[in-house]
Amino acid sequence: MFIKNTWYVAAWDKEVSGDGLFSRTIIGTPILMYRDSNGQLVALEDRCCHRGAPLSVGRREGDCVRCLYHGLKFDATGACVEAPAQPRIPPQARVRKFPVVERHRWIWIWMGDPERADTALIPDTQWLDHPDWRSQDGYIHYDVNYLLIADNLLDFSHLPFVHPTTLGGSEDYAAVSPKVERLADGVRITRWTIDTAAPAFATKVKQWPGRVDRWNIYNFTLPGILLMDSGMAPTGTGAQDGQRVDAAEFRGCQALTPETETSTHYFFAHPHNFAIDRPEVTASIHQSVVAAFDEDRDIITAQQRSLSLAPDFKMVPLSIDAALSQFRWVVSRRLEEEQQQTSAIIPITPSREVA
Amino acid sequence: MFIKNTWYVAAWDKEVSGDGLFSRTIIGTPILMYRDSNGQLVALEDRCCHRGAPLSVGRREGDCVRCLYHGLKFDATGACVEAPAQPRIPPQARVRKFPVVERHRWIWIWMGDPERADTALIPDTQWLDHPDWRSQDGYIHYDVNYLLIADNLLDFSHLPFVHPTTLGGSEDYAAVSPKVERLADGVRITRWTIDTAAPAFATKVKQWPGRVDRWNIYNFTLPGILLMDSGMAPTGTGAQDGQRVDAAEFRGCQALTPETETSTHYFFAHPHNFAIDRPEVTASIHQSVVAAFDEDRDIITAQQRSLSLAPDFKMVPLSIDAALSQFRWVVSRRLEEEQQQTSAIIPITPSREVA
Amino acid sequence: MFIKNTWYVAAWDKEVSGDGLFSRTIIGTPILMYRDSNGQLVALEDRCCHRGAPLSVGRREGDCVRCLYHGLKFDATGACVEAPAQPRIPPQARVRKFPVVERHRWIWIWMGDPERADTALIPDTQWLDHPDWRSQDGYIHYDVNYLLIADNLLDFSHLPFVHPTTLGGSEDYAAVSPKVERLADGVRITRWTIDTAAPAFATKVKQWPGRVDRWNIYNFTLPGILLMDSGMAPTGTGAQDGQRVDAAEFRGCQALTPETETSTHYFFAHPHNFAIDRPEVTASIHQSVVAAFDEDRDIITAQQRSLSLAPDFKMVPLSIDAALSQFRWVVSRRLEEEQQQTSAIIPITPSREVA
Repeated sequence: MFIKNTWYVAAWDKEVSGDGLFSRTIIGTPILMYRDSNGQLVALEDRCCHRGAPLSVGRREGDCVRCLYHGLKFDATGACVEAPAQPRIPPQARVRKFPVVERHRWIWIWMGDPERADTALIPDTQWLDHPDWRSQDGYIHYDVNYLLIADNLLDFSHLPFVHPTTLGGSEDYAAVSPKVERLADGVRITRWTIDTAAPAFATKVKQWPGRVDRWNIYNFTLPGILLMDSGMAPTGTGAQDGQRVDAAEFRGCQALTPETETSTHYFFAHPHNFAIDRPEVTASIHQSVVAAFDEDRDIITAQQRSLSLAPDFKMVPLSIDAALSQFRWVVSRRLEEEQQQTSAIIPITPSREVA
Repeated sequence: MFIKNTWYVAAWDKEVSGDGLFSRTIIGTPILMYRDSNGQLVALEDRCCHRGAPLSVGRREGDCVRCLYHGLKFDATGACVEAPAQPRIPPQARVRKFPVVERHRWIWIWMGDPERADTALIPDTQWLDHPDWRSQDGYIHYDVNYLLIADNLLDFSHLPFVHPTTLGGSEDYAAVSPKVERLADGVRITRWTIDTAAPAFATKVKQWPGRVDRWNIYNFTLPGILLMDSGMAPTGTGAQDGQRVDAAEFRGCQALTPETETSTHYFFAHPHNFAIDRPEVTASIHQSVVAAFDEDRDIITAQQRSLSLAPDFKMVPLSIDAALSQFRWVVSRRLEEEQQQTSAIIPITPSREVA
Repeated sequence: MFIKNTWYVAAWDKEVSGDGLFSRTIIGTPILMYRDSNGQLVALEDRCCHRGAPLSVGRREGDCVRCLYHGLKFDATGACVEAPAQPRIPPQARVRKFPVVERHRWIWIWMGDPERADTALIPDTQWLDHPDWRSQDGYIHYDVNYLLIADNLLDFSHLPFVHPTTLGGSEDYAAVSPKVERLADGVRITRWTIDTAAPAFATKVKQWPGRVDRWNIYNFTLPGILLMDSGMAPTGTGAQDGQRVDAAEFRGCQALTPETETSTHYFFAHPHNFAIDRPEVTASIHQSVVAAFDEDRDIITAQQRSLSLAPDFKMVPLSIDAALSQFRWVVSRRLEEEQQQTSAIIPITPSREVA
């Protein structure tokens, strides 16, 4: 079961290009995406209303797409505008059209009620195409439910265990509980380390006058969007008070989009504002992240296999689970709300009598 | 759910040969086929009545087959005639025997009540071994339900879209609705094109005095047998009135036999009565058909995948679906009839009282 | 459904060695096995109580194991003794510990109530490490339910059919019914052949004065342990009366341990007391057995596939099934007993009223 009235990341902008037809399954529904002659995005259900063939193996005809099974042609609103030997097209001959918006390199799709698709709700990921920041595009396909990955992203304590040589840090790091705050539709995790040595990777890319203050601030919001603000600045320059002087910063952008109940799309990039004229630094940061995410995928996939053998498994909650427990609660509440809204519009039937 | 009281094509004659044991699953039941010492076909359930081992991994002993697990020996009637350490064989020690008939290169099997296995019901496919006709044997295995393939065969409109460079023809072709007639156990589709140019492939194999009349007449009957009569004759020689003068004709024979609910055996050949002394023409016709069928398989398999993700999908019917809708109705009616017959022989139990 | 209060063979001793973490699924539960610093075996559920990750991809720390997802550390009793950022470990933070015992090269595990894990119940397999006997270690993984393999081991009649060139013997062999006796928790099968020629393999390894008496005595007990006593002695030396003079003997040890409902671990060895200074004889005996077991696996796997297509299949019992029918009855009775014991400890709830 998935939240419907929310913006999901459907693709990197470059994945939907030219005259191509791009297909990706989002929360269980196959979606066809393409660009019209003005470059505007179109997102339609990738399943012909006639006999169910995927439109994405069809062909573009101008701003329309033709199913290459029986030749039905659909325009960018999803309406069937041509069918062989069918002078009058029945009005129900249409495929569903989805609101879709392009913002800072990501394509966002709204899988719920189109009336409620407010683009003001789209999270700000400006660092993905800002001239003062650099990053590489990342995508990983996971064969696990998206909530297991959300658990992982909401937990700092696994870093030294899963990523000892990549993101890692010392195992003491796991012992310091970060600050966890509830947001309207998610959770914020904040961790500051004041007056500490600059880590090895940072001394390679920048000169530091002495010790530094480091921060990690995660905003994790529905449906599964993680915006990270992390970095370091020389101690005493007031970073914790909001001043960022001579800072080396990251603005990680990560999005989990469920494909099915047991698979997930994972989009990510880690823009940085230092050494932006050195592509090898950008590549190195990206490679470190990818290596760490591969480690995550290994353990999470093993976890999913283990859990699938034990459907009645009850997790023993620990204090390190504060953030992920809160996020799971936010997800559950939203799902309940959507279900109540759905049942509210079901017409009332007269009560049945029992003899 | 499958129709039982009908003849299914089980194999090409050459597939069951010599001393071999041939196994194929038909409507969910594994069938062992072999020839006795007189060359007569035997069809038995391919599952030993003792512990369920497949007899087809056993061995021939004269006209009998011995299970190579515990050594039970069955004769050609399915009766167990020998069992180790078992002087008296219990009468229930037998496997089911199925009526099986060889006709014009195809082996037909009756999966229902043997009493009703009337060989007069077997469709005529005389062109498969007639000296004036030539063809090559075809077989394709499909991972889809047989009705999706029946839909495809009953629809002409997909030809220009799925087969633009093989069977194809222009897309206008799809726009002309063929004549559809209900048969007792199926449907007939007829299409005539009068006074048209001979197609490219026809001019290569035969001289034509001028324009031609072309026809396509499909008889599609239960359980999934398509007999095609198609061809062309010089315009004005009266083809549409039943005269076939200097005609180039095909008599396509195609049979769908469900293997399971999600897989199908597809037997086919396309006998032609022209250029029968040129094997390369026969081979070329066969290759064209195989290439087209591979295209069909691609789109139908994509359709099955798409439909499997959407169990509640409702197809939007169009006028091009007339033939396939009628055939699906014929299938449903026959299934209902068989179910009523089955339930009619269930003994009546006294009604239960409810306190 | 599996019997719980019984000893299962979990591994060969050498499989659990050094600092390693060994994982094997036993009756549906993943088990982590390792040796502590004294070489004592530890068996824990291989699933972290926190978020379900497998401990076997974690790491040893002294006699403890640390989960390499979030860093929980468990001691050899299964108790969590360390968790990041968690000064007080909740008492329910533990994984299940299983009684485990090493005896004559095999590691035995008790999957039921630990209070009832009486090591006196472990079958005697002393021949596996006795200085007067030699054997090689065998293990095969089967993709079938363990009862189909038990059926096979309890049946002598398949030998000439499945193993004509390996274990085989003549087909007449199958025609002699062995003596079958019920044991408290299993069945004993006894077959004697008096005054017969020594078989070919026996004349290669030993001089025989003349004809021999041969015996095969199988003790097959819960959960699936086969101890074979087979061999031959010169006729007239009183073997059948309990004297074993100049005998060539085997003491086959075989254990079936269900992995899941559809897969099984099969441990085996065939100790012999002749030619023990000729390793090539031991190797040759082992190879013959492995070749025969591969033949068994082929036919049993085919049988399982065949049965899986026919869930309502009713086996026709024959007299050769006496032993396996008795063993299946013993299994069923024990399963029922365990279910009654389980339901007996469910607290009685007040009856619900119906309005």
